[in-house]
Amino acid sequence: MGLVDAPIALCASWPAMTLNPRTLNPAERLDWLRLIRTENVGPITFYQLLARFGSAEAALAALPDIARGGGRTKALAIYPRGAAQREMTQIQEVGARLVAWGEPDYPPALAAIDDAPPLIAMKGRPHLFERSAIAVVGARNASANGRRFARDIAAQLGQHGLTLVSGLARGIDAAAHDGALATGTAAVLAGGIDKVYPPENRALHEQIAENGMLIAEMPIGTEPQARHFPRRNRIISGASVGVLVIEAAIRSGSLITARFALEQGRDVFAVPGSPLDPRCRGTNDLIRNGAILVETIDDVLRELTPALARPPSERMNDKPATAKMVPTAPELARARDLVSDLLSPDPVPIDELVRQCRLPAALVVTIVLEFELAGRIQRHPGNQVSLL
Amino acid sequence: MGLVDAPIALCASWPAMTLNPRTLNPAERLDWLRLIRTENVGPITFYQLLARFGSAEAALAALPDIARGGGRTKALAIYPRGAAQREMTQIQEVGARLVAWGEPDYPPALAAIDDAPPLIAMKGRPHLFERSAIAVVGARNASANGRRFARDIAAQLGQHGLTLVSGLARGIDAAAHDGALATGTAAVLAGGIDKVYPPENRALHEQIAENGMLIAEMPIGTEPQARHFPRRNRIISGASVGVLVIEAAIRSGSLITARFALEQGRDVFAVPGSPLDPRCRGTNDLIRNGAILVETIDDVLRELTPALARPPSERMNDKPATAKMVPTAPELARARDLVSDLLSPDPVPIDELVRQCRLPAALVVTIVLEFELAGRIQRHPGNQVSLL
Repeated sequence: MGLVDAPIALCASWPAMTLNPRTLNPAERLDWLRLIRTENVGPITFYQLLARFGSAEAALAALPDIARGGGRTKALAIYPRGAAQREMTQIQEVGARLVAWGEPDYPPALAAIDDAPPLIAMKGRPHLFERSAIAVVGARNASANGRRFARDIAAQLGQHGLTLVSGLARGIDAAAHDGALATGTAAVLAGGIDKVYPPENRALHEQIAENGMLIAEMPIGTEPQARHFPRRNRIISGASVGVLVIEAAIRSGSLITARFALEQGRDVFAVPGSPLDPRCRGTNDLIRNGAILVETIDDVLRELTPALARPPSERMNDKPATAKMVPTAPELARARDLVSDLLSPDPVPIDELVRQCRLPAALVVTIVLEFELAGRIQRHPGNQVSLL
Repeated sequence: MGLVDAPIALCASWPAMTLNPRTLNPAERLDWLRLIRTENVGPITFYQLLARFGSAEAALAALPDIARGGGRTKALAIYPRGAAQREMTQIQEVGARLVAWGEPDYPPALAAIDDAPPLIAMKGRPHLFERSAIAVVGARNASANGRRFARDIAAQLGQHGLTLVSGLARGIDAAAHDGALATGTAAVLAGGIDKVYPPENRALHEQIAENGMLIAEMPIGTEPQARHFPRRNRIISGASVGVLVIEAAIRSGSLITARFALEQGRDVFAVPGSPLDPRCRGTNDLIRNGAILVETIDDVLRELTPALARPPSERMNDKPATAKMVPTAPELARARDLVSDLLSPDPVPIDELVRQCRLPAALVVTIVLEFELAGRIQRHPGNQVSLL
């Protein structure tokens, strides 16, 4: 029996780690790093492989056969042990640590999102995420008033016991971090943990590394590129109970963060502004679409108070459990054909695939996993996939 | 049988006049003017008297007895025929006309509100209200941007076939009128039809008299006073399908207009602004409470289009019909005691009085009418009354 025909055991035990944190041993951490750095393995695939094979080590061993099952012809580029070891060393050398999903220092809210990074580099004061966090993001070309508002409300949110999360960009992000330096702020970087971006925020970057927390999902040494920013934004919203947007143009990155927040079940807050200022179009549009209008910190606290009153464990959305099933080889072959026919370059929700295939959800998820490892499909927000 | 014991015939025939306009003859118009100018007779009382007695003439004859029934000791000051005639003459002399509720030139939307003025002085081009109207109101101390926005959107609303209604105040009102001068604008005055207020808007006042429409409920010659403005504001919203508020401080007159609009079932639109500008607190608060956020005219048209597609007759809310009933004298006496006990200086909805008295609604309405004519109670928005 080949590995692709092995019994599928997508179990619900993994999310329970959020509630009962455990720490990986060095060998496990290295395997996790190799698995998440392997070609075509994203966070969702990572958790599915872990659930199916019980450990990253076993998943790594199974990967080549699964990829072949999905139709891949050339060998899958598994991340070499040596490269992973070098990365771990470099992370330690810059004073950071690699923290795994489910470990005590991993931000609990972030652990609850479907595509939580399996590993993040963290540098700074880990206790920051023992408190609830709120994100404040906005325009890079922010107005003087917008920056002032961001700095002031960030300071006030800090005084009310919230950790301030942002993206260390120019404008609103920098002002918000600055306002919350004294009370606690975390910056999620788009590149590697060692990369300062933008250059003019070097001093702030260093202050946050000293007094707050830097977080990076990308490998150390990665220069931030345009495609990294949306992935980074899902961490900003995911690590927070809510996202406050201050000044944002239409189609700006801050609106991507707000959209992630909605998908992740977080509150979205927005500061209104004049229709004559293009920097307010995005925030006004958020309000028009249901975001909570914020003029003062009271508008935020009024909404957050009930959420903060519940213990963090209850606030976690457990990742959906999938029932065990054991498909036969002909069932798998037929499922591959059906799913393949339904896929196109337009993203389609996996739920919709399940509905249209009339196959068990766990089987469709397995096929999607195979196709992903084979490099045939790409994942999109909202549990969607498209043909590459 | 005294007049207070006369059969009550509050019938539903009156609102039908909205749909089948008729014109008063000169004697009827004079009686209407005398009745509405009589002490303690407000619009709601006016319509109830008209419904009960069939004509203003008959109501005027019955008034002294009704007031006595309500407990009034000194004679009710009925507006003298000579004074009414002088007022009519003066109105004609300034080039205005006195238009009655239900007449063809009376703004149809205004006719649909509970406390529509029975008579309004109108000066200008009456055809303006053959089109739907929208109100644009806002801060007197408006910002330059706010004024510009008001002027521009008023012009655009006019180009889309809407008549622009406002209050001819400084700031937003004046800018909105100005923007809509070419397409058609109506100014509702707080004082008499001949009173220019504020003085710096004299040129605009005259332009509107020439090309638009001036409307006044107060007697000619009345200097506008603080207490006139809320009454004026209910006409601004009542004559319109919706009210757009541009810049408004907390507890400002524009918010009173917005509240009337809600009570009258009109759409409320508001332009957002910076939390750092106190002139935007009121509009932001309206948005927080459900007003439609407006950045461009599209935000208004999107909401109004379905309403405007229906013929005006269907948009009218008929005044509620009240069933006929004939109370006996002991029933009336008992009802007076019950209602009297329930009244206090705090306003109470008449519905609530009906509920607590456990008496027929028409009987409670009659008692309230008696008390009002006796000068014992005062009416408030939302069909509420309080003891004076």
